[in-house]
Amino acid sequence: MSLLLAMTGWHIEDWRARFQALLPDMPVVVLGEPFDRRAVHYVASWKHPPGSLTGLPNLAAIFSLGAGVDFLFADDKLPAAPIARIVDPDLTTRMSEYIVLHCLIYLRQQRRYDRQQREALWDDDRNQPAARAVRVGVMGLGELGQDAARKLAIIGFDVAGWSRSPKTIEGLQTFSGEDGMKAFLARTDILVSLLPLTPDTRGIINAELLSGLAQDGRLGGPFLINAGRGGLQVADDILAALDAGTLKGATLDVFETEPLPVDSALWSHLGVTVTPHNSAMSEPEAIATAVAQQIGRLEAGEPLLNLVDPERGY
Amino acid sequence: MSLLLAMTGWHIEDWRARFQALLPDMPVVVLGEPFDRRAVHYVASWKHPPGSLTGLPNLAAIFSLGAGVDFLFADDKLPAAPIARIVDPDLTTRMSEYIVLHCLIYLRQQRRYDRQQREALWDDDRNQPAARAVRVGVMGLGELGQDAARKLAIIGFDVAGWSRSPKTIEGLQTFSGEDGMKAFLARTDILVSLLPLTPDTRGIINAELLSGLAQDGRLGGPFLINAGRGGLQVADDILAALDAGTLKGATLDVFETEPLPVDSALWSHLGVTVTPHNSAMSEPEAIATAVAQQIGRLEAGEPLLNLVDPERGY
Repeated sequence: MSLLLAMTGWHIEDWRARFQALLPDMPVVVLGEPFDRRAVHYVASWKHPPGSLTGLPNLAAIFSLGAGVDFLFADDKLPAAPIARIVDPDLTTRMSEYIVLHCLIYLRQQRRYDRQQREALWDDDRNQPAARAVRVGVMGLGELGQDAARKLAIIGFDVAGWSRSPKTIEGLQTFSGEDGMKAFLARTDILVSLLPLTPDTRGIINAELLSGLAQDGRLGGPFLINAGRGGLQVADDILAALDAGTLKGATLDVFETEPLPVDSALWSHLGVTVTPHNSAMSEPEAIATAVAQQIGRLEAGEPLLNLVDPERGY
Repeated sequence: MSLLLAMTGWHIEDWRARFQALLPDMPVVVLGEPFDRRAVHYVASWKHPPGSLTGLPNLAAIFSLGAGVDFLFADDKLPAAPIARIVDPDLTTRMSEYIVLHCLIYLRQQRRYDRQQREALWDDDRNQPAARAVRVGVMGLGELGQDAARKLAIIGFDVAGWSRSPKTIEGLQTFSGEDGMKAFLARTDILVSLLPLTPDTRGIINAELLSGLAQDGRLGGPFLINAGRGGLQVADDILAALDAGTLKGATLDVFETEPLPVDSALWSHLGVTVTPHNSAMSEPEAIATAVAQQIGRLEAGEPLLNLVDPERGY
């Protein structure tokens, strides 16, 4: 039995070496090279070419090598094997670094002070609100959202969360479903999106959602941070809200098309911070170890952890 | 008996109104207006003109309205009354916002991504270290330093602290004194200065100290964040270390002369982030409340909290 690696955009040789070291008794084969399709029991994929995983009669599990699994469901020829997500403390910690950083940039008006420095202008702000006066709303309350919410609260922010289905999380005010969305947005000065991309969430960050954000906050208008998936956002609606002044800033790590095309208006808009989808890098060592442990569980007859529900899409 | 307000650079009328509301039975008088010097029992000061607090025969206590008290000891005609510092959770929380923000800017290379955005360049970094691989060293382990260290550790950084005298703080590796300085600096990738300004600490951030910082860290060289006092740093030594490449960046909130003069080289150096001494604004409401509580303690015959030791100077 063998493990098939299938990825685009990453250095596959690094991954092959790591997996082979972790699984010395299992052949590790690579999509694009010759291999015995019947021997493949496991697939570890990051954005494999759609249709390339057919004809694997003994496939027992598919592992996504990143936090997202939407690329799997975008392959309508995906074999019907169980799918497991990566839940890795390293990845979770990195995402929270990113979320806390960009919430603090907005709270502490760092863009303003950068501009002032370029002008050699010394001008403090006696109206600087404390974190407790600024309301962060985290959309998506999986591992990533919960960790970010907890750390934002420790920094001092007034944090609430929203998820599709109701969740009770100690110390966190939560909203859920379509019914809870309006009240959630109305109390949100900084909206953090960590939602999975599913048919339900595609395009959810649109003009209607943005128009529901708080306009009465201490930061003078709402801000958006999307570190989930590019397909969640309607870029033109974000730009229109920024131009209308109903959105004061947007930090985007993810885009419908990546790399973000050079001619995208997002690059040069003064209200937009672009990062190159690096909010939470999968570290090969940690991710490969987590996948090897999952394979070990299956080989020992134990159930997979972090199974994806194909109905929900995450 | 009365409370005398003495401040420069702040809107004294805001403070007068707040104190009068908190202490309805006590006259609140202001330096520069006529008042009965013998009636003054308490002084609340922020950078009063040196020599202006003489001739107050019944003075019982002096309150600093900011975290620092060095301006008091710079007045060689200061009356010999007990001095109390402000220890205020609001101020502490704001300082930690600032420290966590600027440590994360360095960790996550936000300046690099800002530059890339200006060039519409999509280039992630597969070598992005996690916070646990980056060593922050906090100099000064009072209320501010301890809170910042705790929050940095929660974000994931590898944090240690240094203080003049030995301190044991749960969960924090600590160094102390001149003997401990070398080892402390050698394990520090991001140096955070929250020291008080005293004769011992004046100019402590100089070429010798900077040359002791770690050069082998995952961020490719050390960084400095000084949010303590401008007198702690030798600006020319910082600029020289930046130009030599032995220091990779410096975030400075405080300066020997404030406002920072327009012709200072710090404004335009690409390795320097300048903020206008606003890392932790004193919020009049919270500070005035804390001082009024201290006055209430004295009136009730209870001892002052957060007394300053004139020998140590903090």
